[in-house]
Amino acid sequence: MAIEAARLSPSLAAAAFLARRPPPALFPFSLRRRLPLLRTLASSSGGDGRVVALSSSELRKRRGLSSSSGAAGSATAGDEKLRSLRLLFGRPDVGIDAYIVPSQDAHQSEFIAECFMRRAYLTGFTGSAGTAVVTKDKAALWTDGRYFLQAEKELSHEWTLMRSGNHGVPTTSEWLNDVLPSGCRVGIDPFLFSFDAAEELKYSISNKNHELVLVGGMNLVDEIWGEARPKAPEKSTRVHDIKYAGIDVPSKLSFIRSQLAENGCDALVISMLDEIAWLLNMRGSDVPNSPVFYGYLIVEVSTATLFVDSNKVSEDVLEHLEKAGVKLKPYETIVSEVERLAEKGAKVWLDSSSVNAAIVSAFKSSCDRQMKKKGKVGKKVGEKEASSDEPTTRGPGVEDGALNAVFNVSPVTLAKSVKNEAEIEGMKNSHLRDAAALAEFWCWLEDEVCKNIPRTEVQVAEKLLEFRKRQDGFIETSFDTISGYGANGSIIHYRPTPENCSSVGRDNLFLLDSGAQYIDGTTDITRTVHFGEPSPRQKECFTRVLQGHIALDQAVFPERTPGFVLDVLARSSLWKIGLDYRHGTGHGVGAALNVHEGPQSISYRYGNLTALQKGMIVSNEPGYYEDNSFGIRIENLLLIKELNLANSFGGISYLGFEKLTFVPIQSKLIDTSILSPSEINWVNDYHEEVWEKVSPLLSGDSRDWLWKNTRPLLDVTQ
Amino acid sequence: MAIEAARLSPSLAAAAFLARRPPPALFPFSLRRRLPLLRTLASSSGGDGRVVALSSSELRKRRGLSSSSGAAGSATAGDEKLRSLRLLFGRPDVGIDAYIVPSQDAHQSEFIAECFMRRAYLTGFTGSAGTAVVTKDKAALWTDGRYFLQAEKELSHEWTLMRSGNHGVPTTSEWLNDVLPSGCRVGIDPFLFSFDAAEELKYSISNKNHELVLVGGMNLVDEIWGEARPKAPEKSTRVHDIKYAGIDVPSKLSFIRSQLAENGCDALVISMLDEIAWLLNMRGSDVPNSPVFYGYLIVEVSTATLFVDSNKVSEDVLEHLEKAGVKLKPYETIVSEVERLAEKGAKVWLDSSSVNAAIVSAFKSSCDRQMKKKGKVGKKVGEKEASSDEPTTRGPGVEDGALNAVFNVSPVTLAKSVKNEAEIEGMKNSHLRDAAALAEFWCWLEDEVCKNIPRTEVQVAEKLLEFRKRQDGFIETSFDTISGYGANGSIIHYRPTPENCSSVGRDNLFLLDSGAQYIDGTTDITRTVHFGEPSPRQKECFTRVLQGHIALDQAVFPERTPGFVLDVLARSSLWKIGLDYRHGTGHGVGAALNVHEGPQSISYRYGNLTALQKGMIVSNEPGYYEDNSFGIRIENLLLIKELNLANSFGGISYLGFEKLTFVPIQSKLIDTSILSPSEINWVNDYHEEVWEKVSPLLSGDSRDWLWKNTRPLLDVTQ
Repeated sequence: MAIEAARLSPSLAAAAFLARRPPPALFPFSLRRRLPLLRTLASSSGGDGRVVALSSSELRKRRGLSSSSGAAGSATAGDEKLRSLRLLFGRPDVGIDAYIVPSQDAHQSEFIAECFMRRAYLTGFTGSAGTAVVTKDKAALWTDGRYFLQAEKELSHEWTLMRSGNHGVPTTSEWLNDVLPSGCRVGIDPFLFSFDAAEELKYSISNKNHELVLVGGMNLVDEIWGEARPKAPEKSTRVHDIKYAGIDVPSKLSFIRSQLAENGCDALVISMLDEIAWLLNMRGSDVPNSPVFYGYLIVEVSTATLFVDSNKVSEDVLEHLEKAGVKLKPYETIVSEVERLAEKGAKVWLDSSSVNAAIVSAFKSSCDRQMKKKGKVGKKVGEKEASSDEPTTRGPGVEDGALNAVFNVSPVTLAKSVKNEAEIEGMKNSHLRDAAALAEFWCWLEDEVCKNIPRTEVQVAEKLLEFRKRQDGFIETSFDTISGYGANGSIIHYRPTPENCSSVGRDNLFLLDSGAQYIDGTTDITRTVHFGEPSPRQKECFTRVLQGHIALDQAVFPERTPGFVLDVLARSSLWKIGLDYRHGTGHGVGAALNVHEGPQSISYRYGNLTALQKGMIVSNEPGYYEDNSFGIRIENLLLIKELNLANSFGGISYLGFEKLTFVPIQSKLIDTSILSPSEINWVNDYHEEVWEKVSPLLSGDSRDWLWKNTRPLLDVTQ
Repeated sequence: MAIEAARLSPSLAAAAFLARRPPPALFPFSLRRRLPLLRTLASSSGGDGRVVALSSSELRKRRGLSSSSGAAGSATAGDEKLRSLRLLFGRPDVGIDAYIVPSQDAHQSEFIAECFMRRAYLTGFTGSAGTAVVTKDKAALWTDGRYFLQAEKELSHEWTLMRSGNHGVPTTSEWLNDVLPSGCRVGIDPFLFSFDAAEELKYSISNKNHELVLVGGMNLVDEIWGEARPKAPEKSTRVHDIKYAGIDVPSKLSFIRSQLAENGCDALVISMLDEIAWLLNMRGSDVPNSPVFYGYLIVEVSTATLFVDSNKVSEDVLEHLEKAGVKLKPYETIVSEVERLAEKGAKVWLDSSSVNAAIVSAFKSSCDRQMKKKGKVGKKVGEKEASSDEPTTRGPGVEDGALNAVFNVSPVTLAKSVKNEAEIEGMKNSHLRDAAALAEFWCWLEDEVCKNIPRTEVQVAEKLLEFRKRQDGFIETSFDTISGYGANGSIIHYRPTPENCSSVGRDNLFLLDSGAQYIDGTTDITRTVHFGEPSPRQKECFTRVLQGHIALDQAVFPERTPGFVLDVLARSSLWKIGLDYRHGTGHGVGAALNVHEGPQSISYRYGNLTALQKGMIVSNEPGYYEDNSFGIRIENLLLIKELNLANSFGGISYLGFEKLTFVPIQSKLIDTSILSPSEINWVNDYHEEVWEKVSPLLSGDSRDWLWKNTRPLLDVTQ
């Protein structure tokens, strides 16, 4: 699945904040996105992402019908919501002039539970990415190019649509600085902003002497949502078997504790849901597409505490946690527990790019109170002693004298991204089963289309789900399937809806980007096919994308190479004819976890300096999108491995990729006259490997289909 | 000529200083260099760069003989110099505990006049790169891997050699922090450090509470050098003809003034010698290899003043300058003039990465005095009014409230790097004449070697100079020729000396990196050849380097792409077999100016974000160096041009390269079985173009040689 690379680089936002200036300009494209105020999130609600050519009056007429999601409600009701929200501004315990409603939950999650879809509820706009800002007399919603038409349709006339990325469109803070008189109070729910994001916001609105107000104790949208607000998810959690996890919880905790010691810290506060799931070898189903559960985790030198709704914890899980010495506390008590850490003088490791502002500010206030009370911070847990007036920077992170904390990337982030043997085996196995399901699916679809049986993009996605469900260990999709025929394929994050989608035919390209969560692994694959006669233009573009895909797949690079160095390899063949694509080339993928994970990425954005390391998994997904015409993307997942080469200049390791995905690439779309002999060999070798690995899992028609689709390309070069 | 990319990125040092932390870790190599305390400078003195296998006792014995340069003197005398220098530490007007002696002149020049070679005089070490630090009881010299053996040989026993880049070797400031007791005074000559470098140094030694002392009014090494110190260069300057310069001085000044206005500044202080030469369409010969002269330039809204020794200015030049409204003042009066700017309240644009700390601190002190005297800064020149207590940031640079200055990259830097039509024509023409000289030379050398006539590396370089001298408009070499046979070729910046160099034979590779200054252009070319039978290993490595050269040459990229994005293209083919090279791939080149110029570069160091632009010139010089065995480098100069492609995705320009260099690449060294058909075509097309362009300038044997060496490769691929 293609992802805009910015979201894989929380460090970029942090660096931007620390340097007190915006992130470096992104190249080679001018589309500049603010992080994390406007992130690229794939919606789990019933948002209608379809782009259709309708007049705006037609769009307005249809508005009442289009929003079927429980979270969104109808757009006309939105005006009432605005009035109710503004009434709260004046309440003595609130006292603000503006309120910002982002798309986030309290954990910076990509997929969120319905009860946290406050922006969708308030605005009526159900797209996955967007930020609403309401002042006493204005209301504006920021979203990006994927959602302009949908937002136009869903927003009431009281809302101004801010088309992010378009020339001259201000950021949220630029707009607030413009529309508010100097010295206003801008409110946020501090749980919904990472500390870094809140600090960045505070800094940018200070230009106009606005004050950032952390409205505590309540979310104003929840206040007006009232009884109608969906309940928080209560799904049960489960133990992630050691045969898939590879490393037991005590060992993982012991690693974290060694990191605490190395950095002179007494406690680590973790808020990213996939980090908690990975560290505790637990899985859940609180949100769609990711096997995670809502919780926080505090790891101290001799204890560990999971903050979670106890209803979600079965006997099995309880026993599993007890064995690892992990105690339970209610989800809501995280703030008071963080305050307690401050009271006992613990030095706390906080990843300020993910931990929310509510937690950090509670900790800071408690530190301040301690300082005032005692004149200095009291005796610390463990054996260390430190007084707050003699701050010592022991870790590589940023340290604040008054705040007894180290701000640094969570030690779980990198550890989770480097897969162990068991995780790698699970990923490989689940990819083979996924490949079998896909072969069955493509065999079926080809047959249907050739028989002229009309199948819509949604039906096709549903059928794919059926095939996947039959595979062992299948849990759910790893993201909403992007099933785009013809022009719809040119919309990078297209999502068809039953009410409004095309049928897959023989006249154009069909792009299918999908993935699944299995008990032992997570998949993400894109293939583009043509069931009729592709045009020379389509073949040329497809072949150029394929050349980029091959170039990256075959790359060899020295250790310590950041992913952005390799990005050009995937684009060069397109650049040669003046083409390009407006998304990153590769993202990290979790092992039976989130389909998008950091810290590594392969992108034209050079802000992410994380080196690619042995054991990491990345996607390889160059593409090309011809507006209103067709879309092409070819995506495999790759495992980074150490190579055994004839030389190792500099005495260092050289790394390369091993394919995890084994599904044929349609030969019909390849113009072999453009390919070099070695590129032709790559295709033939890949298809031979696909046949060898996947055919044992197939029988009948689908096996025949796989045979036909893995035959060598004719070498037509001279 | 290969260059370590760091020196092309003054912005990196500036950014590092501004962020109060060292530059980002360099990848993929661990060799970390401090800028500009230790820069890669090619020596113009008689330094012996040769690396030979001798025992250290043998080296010590030879020491007295090895240093023949006037600047260096004998090593035993070095001890006396140290004693004299330390005596000065205690003088009341000095009062320091340590003194740092860098290689620089006051203008951050690559090539410097002999009178400024203070580090070489003091230490006896004549290599081009190095920093000496002397305390009351210790003396240490930092240099990099190129010079370890030479430094061992040349330094007296009182000096400790610090092998920069080796594991555990401290930086100069780390060492000072280690060896000095807390709270010492560390002296520098502020003319020899850019403001950024001085600030970085001040910051890093403040960790140990040391104070940086700008020892004004004298250079302590000059004090002990006394009468023996060579005179400052007094060579005449000349007008650079408009037919080569393309744009007249009034137009260039007018552009600078528009930049001043845009940035709200009243004056620009320029100290880079090539910037002054470019802006004034003047050339000089104060230093070897670069046609520049010592001077400073101040451009104000209605005046411009050149600070230069008036002896250097002929009637012609005077008339030329008068026409452009440029006045003359003595070189030494730059500081008092800068103080005068502060007195009249002018806001001054300073490029703190190049302007030295003496100038900036004089300006700052004068600003401070003005503030104290008047309570505020007085009326400014021009029409602008500003008081120092209401500082307004008008430019994109860094501004200091008390210091009425904008710190920003000099506007000349980018303007100079983007060549105009006349400069491009001059570069093309001079490259063809240079190619003719090289064809004659290679024809001669091949003949000599085949006849078994022994020719040393130095004789070969001298002969090449002879051939070049016969070409119209030849002035001098653009850097010291790197003429390396066999193992000597593996020393990236090897420089043979008559006393100690190899003969070019038929048993190994011969690497020749050379260039020339012509009246209309500057050249820089490297070729590697074998006059006997190359080994399969040599052919494999050569072909891999060639593949990298071709990949970069053929690159197409969207506008706004920084050079580092393309660096991987030149390395990929080497990485595939675990090889690499430890230098950047491309540097900027001046038009009848410095052979190394910024701001662009193509390097694995990602700190230089300058976009490659139409009209810029870069070198393309991947290489491979097998220690103690052989070296390979293939270097052409390339002009960046806009391409007319079938598509232009994103509505932007796509750029590519046009070759300027037309000299055959030795076919014997190419293993065609590794090359793709398109790579074979590249070689054949290039050689066809070489023949077409250069053969009309040749006759007789050299024409025959060119014919033989531009024949198509046999296509042996299937």
